[in-house]
Amino acid sequence: MEYVTGVMQTQALELCQLQNGSYEGKTVKVNGMIHAIRDLGEISFVLLRKREGLLQCVLEKDLQLECKRLTEEMAVEAEGVVAAEPRAPGGMELRLTQVRVLSEPVASLPLAISKWKLKTSLEAKLNDRSISLRNIRERARFKLQEGIVRAFREFLYSQGFTEIHTPKIGAKGAEGGSNLFRLDYFHRPAVLAQSPQFYKQMMVGVYDRVFETGPVFRAEKHRTKRHLNEYISLDFEMGYLEGFEELMAMETGFLQYMRTFLQQEYAKELQLLNVTLPRADCIPVVRFDEAKQKVADLYGRPMRTPYDLEPEEELLIGRYFKEKENADFVFVTHYPAKKRPFYAMEDPADPSVTLSFDLLFRGLEVTTGGQRIHDAQLLMEKIAKRGLETEGMEAYLDTFRYGMMPHGGLGIGLERLTMQLLGAENVRETTLFPRDLSRLEP
Amino acid sequence: MEYVTGVMQTQALELCQLQNGSYEGKTVKVNGMIHAIRDLGEISFVLLRKREGLLQCVLEKDLQLECKRLTEEMAVEAEGVVAAEPRAPGGMELRLTQVRVLSEPVASLPLAISKWKLKTSLEAKLNDRSISLRNIRERARFKLQEGIVRAFREFLYSQGFTEIHTPKIGAKGAEGGSNLFRLDYFHRPAVLAQSPQFYKQMMVGVYDRVFETGPVFRAEKHRTKRHLNEYISLDFEMGYLEGFEELMAMETGFLQYMRTFLQQEYAKELQLLNVTLPRADCIPVVRFDEAKQKVADLYGRPMRTPYDLEPEEELLIGRYFKEKENADFVFVTHYPAKKRPFYAMEDPADPSVTLSFDLLFRGLEVTTGGQRIHDAQLLMEKIAKRGLETEGMEAYLDTFRYGMMPHGGLGIGLERLTMQLLGAENVRETTLFPRDLSRLEP
Repeated sequence: MEYVTGVMQTQALELCQLQNGSYEGKTVKVNGMIHAIRDLGEISFVLLRKREGLLQCVLEKDLQLECKRLTEEMAVEAEGVVAAEPRAPGGMELRLTQVRVLSEPVASLPLAISKWKLKTSLEAKLNDRSISLRNIRERARFKLQEGIVRAFREFLYSQGFTEIHTPKIGAKGAEGGSNLFRLDYFHRPAVLAQSPQFYKQMMVGVYDRVFETGPVFRAEKHRTKRHLNEYISLDFEMGYLEGFEELMAMETGFLQYMRTFLQQEYAKELQLLNVTLPRADCIPVVRFDEAKQKVADLYGRPMRTPYDLEPEEELLIGRYFKEKENADFVFVTHYPAKKRPFYAMEDPADPSVTLSFDLLFRGLEVTTGGQRIHDAQLLMEKIAKRGLETEGMEAYLDTFRYGMMPHGGLGIGLERLTMQLLGAENVRETTLFPRDLSRLEP
Repeated sequence: MEYVTGVMQTQALELCQLQNGSYEGKTVKVNGMIHAIRDLGEISFVLLRKREGLLQCVLEKDLQLECKRLTEEMAVEAEGVVAAEPRAPGGMELRLTQVRVLSEPVASLPLAISKWKLKTSLEAKLNDRSISLRNIRERARFKLQEGIVRAFREFLYSQGFTEIHTPKIGAKGAEGGSNLFRLDYFHRPAVLAQSPQFYKQMMVGVYDRVFETGPVFRAEKHRTKRHLNEYISLDFEMGYLEGFEELMAMETGFLQYMRTFLQQEYAKELQLLNVTLPRADCIPVVRFDEAKQKVADLYGRPMRTPYDLEPEEELLIGRYFKEKENADFVFVTHYPAKKRPFYAMEDPADPSVTLSFDLLFRGLEVTTGGQRIHDAQLLMEKIAKRGLETEGMEAYLDTFRYGMMPHGGLGIGLERLTMQLLGAENVRETTLFPRDLSRLEP
């Protein structure tokens, strides 16, 4: 009888092991993909791409003649002697004594991925996404994105939140309307979730505080640099709110945690991408109507949409608070009820606005949140007033009839947050495999 | 100007704070939902449901007369004096001095959620899911499920894996066939991802090791206790495999980590649900054909499906290894090529079988994995031999043409893993909001 007893220790070493100094002068085994080759005649420099970065290997002519001709994007297993070399990445290099080819490409690369900057169009990068991401800086973006998600989860665990997984196929969308992808579910009409809204509210009654990190789907016909038709939403919802300000406070706590976490765990990627982390110690709060008036007055911009902020207004609000307060983030509060969903709690002091907010990050909305109506009666009145149908919402509405504490929450667009953190020009730059009006592949 | 500077400290205390002993004799504030009330005449016991468990509160008649009549599922904020009480949960109780009602239900509960065991049908529980989950033991299941997912991620981070997010809407499914949900994507045919297979393979070339925890969609017309049409798949994929045994070793490492992690972080839930953690120190490995023959011989079961295991065979294999080796897990290897997807690597020693495996947990398949074909030429031949179309797979296939290391991976069904861990009878018991042939709501 054979048994498996746990993780197998491979002989091949990773960069963090090689760079700790203890292997100098020793013969070691590594694997990697050949990222670039520089032939200097008597020797060649072979850069191996490993998950933690690049490893400089020196290949002497004699060995070169012995082994198979090496090319970029070959996967190899190599043996060599570790030597200190201040000019090499990480301060060391490997003097090769043996190279075994594990696999080789059959076509030459469509993109010059070993260049420091991948100078090509976004379209070209997305068309050959699994190749363009092999560029060291391209892949570093999504490593940072991993860090954001980890920080979100770790922070919320520490604050007593429970992680949930809610269905993406449903009978009815949370916000209603025409933004839903429709599908046939065993001969029944179904839709893809545009947000986990209903479910996370239902789960607040169970765990008090819940969060989810998962895909959401919006069938919006936008063709902009900041819209995707499928994206990852970082959602949380919390009970026993005394005011919707607690939601902004919790998000600020996350942003602060994220900042520290990225500095500690992703310093390499921050440096590679030359990221300036945003200030999150003290985030200004401004009311929607005041913000709107301010940019109209200061920048001479006519107000065209009374119930929402136009993208240019968001930019100007961001600019104003950057100049005035050196703020990277701004909370805009009290959005008009007219443009917020039926479950948004109205401000008792002025029912035309809601106890809600958006978070702008360097002039772009990255979060929408607010307090929700928890009173069953009020919710039914609001639904009736808006002329909405309750079909498909029975379980959601019942949750309130059987008792629900005051609560609220928010949703953060992960790709947008990453985009603004990196200063990317287009949200597709910070999406592994974007889905938009024209792109369904790869 | 107003500012947000970080998480707001609320005055209301949580159970872990109350139970640390330092509040005895002090007046504190708490919030919670009224889980149950026991009226003893002069006093009433009011059990508050909080996220960490139940808090026993004592309400004297005088106060009872003063405040609003309390009912189950009211959300309240209460003040009281902390007192040691060995008979109360957690060894302490709160002698109430003030109760403020935050919200109240308008309908009486459809289920007796305050009972220790929720004695009702699965159907009834699922129909009123947001209510049935308020039962302490019901919600503990999903807390443990959270623990499994956390353990999966934490373990893989420690092993150098990168977390990825891949699209759920695509032009083509990974396994092909009729098991795909179809939708209209801006007047183009699209499908929901039945697995992140293609994407995680493409990403192995970028990060060497990747994982994803996300929903997958299967339009299978099964009506069994172990099938769902939408579930959470815990997927990983790793490069530089020297043998597919490394995949089983990595999974075993995860299971060992999960065991320790749950013991450390979820001891309360393990106890509440009386869970016996499975042995994962030493997992037997048996070949598909041997396992099949063994159960045929030992239990007199005729072999009807030569290329796959029937559910009853899985049960018997599990039973055999439990009896013989006291094993909760069994790896079954070398599944026939016929029933495995085109990208499965065939065994060079016998091309009729693949370098693949399933993991059985207490007699149920919870994982499918294996080594993949990384050679572009071989992959194209396999596709041709099976008469498959390459349309929609161009980017996937290009990845191999441009070079790819040997690799493999696996997918774990989260709900099934939870089901077997808890000894649940039906996978719907361990799914928050299941989707099946007849259920699309809530």
